Amino acid sequence: MSLRLISLTTDFGLAGHFVGTMKGVILGIAPSARLVDITHQITPFNVGEAALVIAQAWRYFPERSIHLVVVDPGVGSTRRPILVEADGHYFIGPDNGVFSMIYDAAPSKVREITNAKLRLGAVSRTFHARDIFAPAAAHSACGIPPARFGKLIHDAVRAPALSPVHLKGSLWRGVVLMADHFGNLITNFHVHQFPDIKTQPMEIRIGGGRIHRLALTYSDTAAGELFAIVGSSGFIEIAMNQASAAAKLACSAGSALELEFV
Amino acid sequence: MSLRLISLTTDFGLAGHFVGTMKGVILGIAPSARLVDITHQITPFNVGEAALVIAQAWRYFPERSIHLVVVDPGVGSTRRPILVEADGHYFIGPDNGVFSMIYDAAPSKVREITNAKLRLGAVSRTFHARDIFAPAAAHSACGIPPARFGKLIHDAVRAPALSPVHLKGSLWRGVVLMADHFGNLITNFHVHQFPDIKTQPMEIRIGGGRIHRLALTYSDTAAGELFAIVGSSGFIEIAMNQASAAAKLACSAGSALELEFV
Amino acid sequence: MSLRLISLTTDFGLAGHFVGTMKGVILGIAPSARLVDITHQITPFNVGEAALVIAQAWRYFPERSIHLVVVDPGVGSTRRPILVEADGHYFIGPDNGVFSMIYDAAPSKVREITNAKLRLGAVSRTFHARDIFAPAAAHSACGIPPARFGKLIHDAVRAPALSPVHLKGSLWRGVVLMADHFGNLITNFHVHQFPDIKTQPMEIRIGGGRIHRLALTYSDTAAGELFAIVGSSGFIEIAMNQASAAAKLACSAGSALELEFV
Repeated sequence: MSLRLISLTTDFGLAGHFVGTMKGVILGIAPSARLVDITHQITPFNVGEAALVIAQAWRYFPERSIHLVVVDPGVGSTRRPILVEADGHYFIGPDNGVFSMIYDAAPSKVREITNAKLRLGAVSRTFHARDIFAPAAAHSACGIPPARFGKLIHDAVRAPALSPVHLKGSLWRGVVLMADHFGNLITNFHVHQFPDIKTQPMEIRIGGGRIHRLALTYSDTAAGELFAIVGSSGFIEIAMNQASAAAKLACSAGSALELEFV
Repeated sequence: MSLRLISLTTDFGLAGHFVGTMKGVILGIAPSARLVDITHQITPFNVGEAALVIAQAWRYFPERSIHLVVVDPGVGSTRRPILVEADGHYFIGPDNGVFSMIYDAAPSKVREITNAKLRLGAVSRTFHARDIFAPAAAHSACGIPPARFGKLIHDAVRAPALSPVHLKGSLWRGVVLMADHFGNLITNFHVHQFPDIKTQPMEIRIGGGRIHRLALTYSDTAAGELFAIVGSSGFIEIAMNQASAAAKLACSAGSALELEFV
Repeated sequence: MSLRLISLTTDFGLAGHFVGTMKGVILGIAPSARLVDITHQITPFNVGEAALVIAQAWRYFPERSIHLVVVDPGVGSTRRPILVEADGHYFIGPDNGVFSMIYDAAPSKVREITNAKLRLGAVSRTFHARDIFAPAAAHSACGIPPARFGKLIHDAVRAPALSPVHLKGSLWRGVVLMADHFGNLITNFHVHQFPDIKTQPMEIRIGGGRIHRLALTYSDTAAGELFAIVGSSGFIEIAMNQASAAAKLACSAGSALELEFV
């Protein structure tokens, strides 16, 4: 009996029948697959947010996991359904850039899913998660090899790079990728790209705030203090101890910030 | 080992211990049952919304699935707990009309659950989901046949019909059944009852808006355009491309609309 | 194959990757463990609310269940990770009082988790749920005995008692522990401590309201009536029939109330 793991990331929310119906379809085809929700609360149609969330999560799943990611503003258009193989993991979703950070992280093989036998019999124009993506994930969990889904493609869509921009000297411009549940602002400054942040004096300017401190833990900061911290996925985050930096600074996904070494 | 599937639909929300406690009870009795949340965010006490959600989802689950639906404003009263068999699926919940759309969709056998051995030892007056419905679903998953739960009844409660009303000639009045997570308004006009909507000129009037177009997909519409579309469950929906028709029209569950063929 | 049950209670919310990542880690170590969400919507950093939720739920899970509870404002500080054994159940989380109501309910053995082999290889300073607690739960599900995690401790943190205060004669002061999804106010008056509430005339004063009635069920009360009821976990709750007592009285967790037998 296969215990293949399928993770789910969508913008469907948890009201309504969408998520449950997808799972019914998957378990009808692959009765012993294990389903793990990553989140269904991606901001509707926000492909970039979904790209970040799956990039933060996937390496913590066991090899051979299948990651179903459906944030799909182009459902019903000619955008392609794809299956991606990277570092022993599988990714299934629309070809709209949602896997861009996977392509950056590991050598990836991308296939267009064209095999009509691996879909539901009738495909609607509005719910490909149910009719195309869920069956593809389930068949993959049953051991159908990637090549059976369709041919390799080499022009998969990539989201515009979210890398920090080098303005001059020691000054960089970045962007908030998302605010998390606690109001921490996850920026696109990654500690691998900016290792000096751990040792050199710096200033981060964001939403009227100026931050000079990289804290090691939340608990060694003062109440009400704004600080930077290396988040659990390696991105620099702007945070407050037991309070919301997002609310304090009135910042959210898309807000600009500057980092300067001084 | 049984992998019987139990779906769960409630108005309990996801805060608090309610849903987790129900699942603990189920897995204590049926350790290998598979649990799938459909939703726990039915509007509190809204039996009609739950009836629609389970009607949209159940056919996508494998046969022999057990669907636990608990929206139960009458908990503690004399309303009966029931077990329904329809098209190889099982449904367990209160007899308050929540399964009306199942009765319409397939020949149904309904039993009152009276066997005290298939409940928890102590039954509270406020949490029958834990004490009666969850154990019933679990025992059913273990293979206890329906007849052991109680006798057939023939007077199960049906919700008032939600069918469109024929006003005159080619004019019909309908109602919004619910707004989904994306702000699409799901109406009670079903494409099976109104197949002409695909080919004949028509006007839908709702919340000050007039809609003349049945789109095939979201993606072939313009930004800001209101349109009709056949939803994934066959009901006509009022929608906007990447925006909320519910917000635009200030409509929600219960809002009236008219459909006229012109 | 082990089907050990792991329940999860956190304040991580359902947006973002946190919960999914934790589950990926668990299932990578213990592929056949069963995961059950109790809730991830504890008010951020509210240890007392988490203590109540797990106290309400745990006895409804089968013996040998493992309960992972992570509400952890002190993450990264020197607060200890602990494993608790009580009445055949296991509890894993931070030593910050979140298991206080378990200690009150059953004789408990508490161990500090110190065995570095039972963690992820690299432990971050901000996400111990992923790096320490999830692996500990998974290894426990795989049958690693408690003694392997670390030594017994006898000074586990207890939250300040939430017992009602005896003011004088037949007058008691209490507090709202939490408001549930339906707006019912769960108080710290437990029916075991106040059995007379079922038979003696009494008055509860809360938020400008005066309540004289202990109802047996929601359904035998009138619309708009405020009443007391014994909740499904034995605590007295202040409720309204199909309406929110919390909204009506403008009360929430922490609100004071008085109970007087008259």
